[in-house]
Amino acid sequence: MMNRQAILHIPKSSYAFPLSTSDIRIRLRAGKGDLERVRLVIGNQYLWDTRQEFEMQRSGSDSMFDYFECDYHCTDTRLGYYFLLSRGEEEIIYAESGFLDPETVDIDKDRMRFVFFQFPYINGIDVHKKPSWVNEAVFYQIFPERFCNGDPDISPEDTAEWGDKPTPWNYFGGDLQGIIQKLPYLEELGVTALYLTPIFEALSNHKYDTVDYTRIDPHFGDESTLVELVQKAHERGIRIMLDGVFNHCGGGFRQFMDVAAHGEASPYKDWFHIHYFPVSFDPFNFEGFGSTAYVTCAKAREGLAPGEEKKWCMPKLNTENPEVMEYLLGAVAKWTRTGIDGWRLDVSDEVDANFWREFRKTVRGINPDAVIIGENWWNAQPWLRGDQFDGVMNYAVQRASVLYFAQNRISPRQFEESLTEYLMRYSSQANDSMLNLLDSHDTPRFINTCGGNLGRLKNAAAFQYTYVGMPCTYYGTEIGMTGENDPDCRKTFDWNEENWDHELRAYYQKLIALRKTKKALQRGSVRFCSTENVFAMERVWENERLLVLINNTEDCQEYPLSRAKAVDLLGGKEYAAGGSIELAPYSAAVLAVE
Amino acid sequence: MMNRQAILHIPKSSYAFPLSTSDIRIRLRAGKGDLERVRLVIGNQYLWDTRQEFEMQRSGSDSMFDYFECDYHCTDTRLGYYFLLSRGEEEIIYAESGFLDPETVDIDKDRMRFVFFQFPYINGIDVHKKPSWVNEAVFYQIFPERFCNGDPDISPEDTAEWGDKPTPWNYFGGDLQGIIQKLPYLEELGVTALYLTPIFEALSNHKYDTVDYTRIDPHFGDESTLVELVQKAHERGIRIMLDGVFNHCGGGFRQFMDVAAHGEASPYKDWFHIHYFPVSFDPFNFEGFGSTAYVTCAKAREGLAPGEEKKWCMPKLNTENPEVMEYLLGAVAKWTRTGIDGWRLDVSDEVDANFWREFRKTVRGINPDAVIIGENWWNAQPWLRGDQFDGVMNYAVQRASVLYFAQNRISPRQFEESLTEYLMRYSSQANDSMLNLLDSHDTPRFINTCGGNLGRLKNAAAFQYTYVGMPCTYYGTEIGMTGENDPDCRKTFDWNEENWDHELRAYYQKLIALRKTKKALQRGSVRFCSTENVFAMERVWENERLLVLINNTEDCQEYPLSRAKAVDLLGGKEYAAGGSIELAPYSAAVLAVE
Repeated sequence: MMNRQAILHIPKSSYAFPLSTSDIRIRLRAGKGDLERVRLVIGNQYLWDTRQEFEMQRSGSDSMFDYFECDYHCTDTRLGYYFLLSRGEEEIIYAESGFLDPETVDIDKDRMRFVFFQFPYINGIDVHKKPSWVNEAVFYQIFPERFCNGDPDISPEDTAEWGDKPTPWNYFGGDLQGIIQKLPYLEELGVTALYLTPIFEALSNHKYDTVDYTRIDPHFGDESTLVELVQKAHERGIRIMLDGVFNHCGGGFRQFMDVAAHGEASPYKDWFHIHYFPVSFDPFNFEGFGSTAYVTCAKAREGLAPGEEKKWCMPKLNTENPEVMEYLLGAVAKWTRTGIDGWRLDVSDEVDANFWREFRKTVRGINPDAVIIGENWWNAQPWLRGDQFDGVMNYAVQRASVLYFAQNRISPRQFEESLTEYLMRYSSQANDSMLNLLDSHDTPRFINTCGGNLGRLKNAAAFQYTYVGMPCTYYGTEIGMTGENDPDCRKTFDWNEENWDHELRAYYQKLIALRKTKKALQRGSVRFCSTENVFAMERVWENERLLVLINNTEDCQEYPLSRAKAVDLLGGKEYAAGGSIELAPYSAAVLAVE
Repeated sequence: MMNRQAILHIPKSSYAFPLSTSDIRIRLRAGKGDLERVRLVIGNQYLWDTRQEFEMQRSGSDSMFDYFECDYHCTDTRLGYYFLLSRGEEEIIYAESGFLDPETVDIDKDRMRFVFFQFPYINGIDVHKKPSWVNEAVFYQIFPERFCNGDPDISPEDTAEWGDKPTPWNYFGGDLQGIIQKLPYLEELGVTALYLTPIFEALSNHKYDTVDYTRIDPHFGDESTLVELVQKAHERGIRIMLDGVFNHCGGGFRQFMDVAAHGEASPYKDWFHIHYFPVSFDPFNFEGFGSTAYVTCAKAREGLAPGEEKKWCMPKLNTENPEVMEYLLGAVAKWTRTGIDGWRLDVSDEVDANFWREFRKTVRGINPDAVIIGENWWNAQPWLRGDQFDGVMNYAVQRASVLYFAQNRISPRQFEESLTEYLMRYSSQANDSMLNLLDSHDTPRFINTCGGNLGRLKNAAAFQYTYVGMPCTYYGTEIGMTGENDPDCRKTFDWNEENWDHELRAYYQKLIALRKTKKALQRGSVRFCSTENVFAMERVWENERLLVLINNTEDCQEYPLSRAKAVDLLGGKEYAAGGSIELAPYSAAVLAVE
């Protein structure tokens, strides 16, 4: 008997989403190994007798479930559909009305008993349109204060020496001119898009505490520096994504300071979430980043001097207030018009959906090809229906990468099960738009998580650059920069080439070049085929078939090759058909299979 | 071993939704009878060590699953949570990261392995706010052309005799003045809200083919008649809900006629979905209601004369076009400002979500207490997240009512399983806002579905008026009007009292009065407790405990009573504690239990 309780389909969700105004992708979940055959019966709901039957393919499995998938092309998009599930002799219908015996139910006429699943109409505006360039994008994340000091004249007065140990409070003078100066370096590395953490006026070194959304931080440059950066980056084929912090502002945000000073008399009294007046800082009586309790703890933890909490608190913005929306979206429009290519959104899960929908309309209205990436650490399905973000920072895959590549706590098969689970959470457009990272300014550097094992980092990178979604490398990873969690992961980039790990950098260049030349890595289907000790993933686009193999153990491992000849695009070696490949300890191969 | 594959929780869905800015309801689904105990562990995600444990209660079961529910009250709404599932000795953690052994996972520190479920923040604007009055509402649906002719001067020239057989094309002269005249009748019946099918200018008798959205149909009255109706209805405590048809217009819509005449030269060429120019009617080359193919079939079926299809086609409106939005929402604003209390939305599932969100903002901006009801025949979860509709016409429960009450094709227990399944699809606010109908202008009348068995109709009505959601009776049901599907279900109301079923009408009055006086029916929790032959449902609000019992068989049935005394609010009879109640064939009781 099949496990009916394991079977899941949710209409108008990541289980049924349009790819275009005439194409829909349908998924079904079933117990692992439970079903031998799944068919999709689909057609125009108003011409129900013209419905057609299609075989669904198993697209992958996680630890408990198999997933089946099928695309349907239609001219009239008022769709009705159901599933035919088979296991041995057992055959059953699965529809909105539940499980029905095909022998006894009248699918054509009994509308009381048989209710098909429905996709009522594909409206163009409801289709998730990812930017045209996400499949080819290779991202590089820069923490501007620490990348390069290109204009010492605008550095903070108390700038520490480049290379000193970062603290939560010190400054090093990195700026936008520094990024402009290093564009040749970035072009040589091969990246095609930069994600800059915030650059708007703020008091801290990280700039997540905005003081003025309409102004570039004076220690980073000014509007003309940003325009110059965008233009010069574009000349080299490099896009720019800025970081928008709309959940909260900084304690120095002038509108907040006004409320703190004048209480209910301030015209900005409804711009925040103040529990009662006057504003109090001890205890906090307003909503802040994280939570007020958290802020209080952070204050204690970081040993601020009395009165300092006023400066460093991060009041939550009332993004429901039309005045706040107008102010923030005005700034968003201004910066989007400089020609930038997208926004990464800080603490995006704590901001209301209405704000993000208006944000998307504003940004896409100016640049229809701009990317929007949320900072959602958890399942982000509600934000990725096409009306808010394109993708999110892929912390789910990041965690799985830590568990597998860095810590060896899960097997290759468990890793691929996790990946499948995450792929099935979202539409294909969202999966293509994920920002795939190994680390960031909010985590320890991956090499530290690996305990310094470079082979593990290289394997994780090989995976990252061959997987679905946009790879994003945190600045300096390619030269071997190390660092524990914040503030240690925010060290200055060491521009003395003698200190670089040139071999690691060459490996990154090779991976990036591969990503940029192989359609199968950018757009191909993905199928996992790991063994006990080797992570394996096949990516196919038209006639291009690539097999990614990763040995993340300290021993040599073999992987059997199929009937076709193959050549390793990373190592260059060729393999005859039907043999096997021996993978050195901590190594990866990307085989082009004939 | 518990069936892990049966267990389901979806963050930020009908499995986790805010009731207010400080209250959240959490649900979990598990295999039927599989779990003995479910606990929710929940707390501030930034102060994770302050989390608390709560018992979850089984709120109901459908044919395959048990559902557990728990409410959590919080001041800081940045929530993390997970579940503790128990079955005998087996105890397991269920979280976003899957199933974990509580003995081996470090919930406090292992953020790679243990990822809790998250509700990141309750933003007020994202909370589904139902109108204040839906729990008390008793609706009555009127098809204006057939209810009462109050102003013969404005009747169509070719008006048929009141009482004649309705055809798809004939007119009887019913109008708004007729409804005004019958307000005393409606007040006496006890209803508190009217749902009027469309009243805007249109060619057909049903008016679903709008010609001018800004004008009342001249055969129904004018703007002043509507204002008079709204005022006089309000004076009697009766609300008015209008029908908005924004998916499509009529062939006579002037903007469409302009495109039909001038093709690409028309300023309205982008107001519709025209596949190519010039507009063609044979074959149709534009999107229409249902589908163009369907329209073509309908044309053939209904034997239109050549050229008539031009008049009767229903072109789909391009609701993505800002000009169309402005025109339609302008009309919506105009009519909402007359003081009406809500909108029912025709073919709401085929219109884009962006339009509905703007629609909600427009309507609620003018009347924050207006109700919005979609015409969604299928699972409407995507439309009921609080950003589009409050509820939908509850055709799922209508179908189940047909199967149980009218056709006896399912048992009481199967009926309650269906009800539970449907309740669990939506948030509680949406469930309270459902328009619960037995029939409508789009179905055969329920009495016909019952084969004329009045006992079955009365039982279905007893259920309808005691269940969660807003009961809505189709005009004339209460006097015994019959009718097969459209056009027969759209007969004229027979105002000759000699022809009325007075006993049925008295029964409806009693049910309506009961609904209006008992908080437990309006707002109570619902728990099903049917036996093999008796449908039973307990509704509890504070100290009020009602037990609804329905015998839908042709035999007498007994139902055991608990320790408490009870009195039947329908029949008046009193019952001693610990005995049982005998229910006559086709009868219902609503017991007030001490």
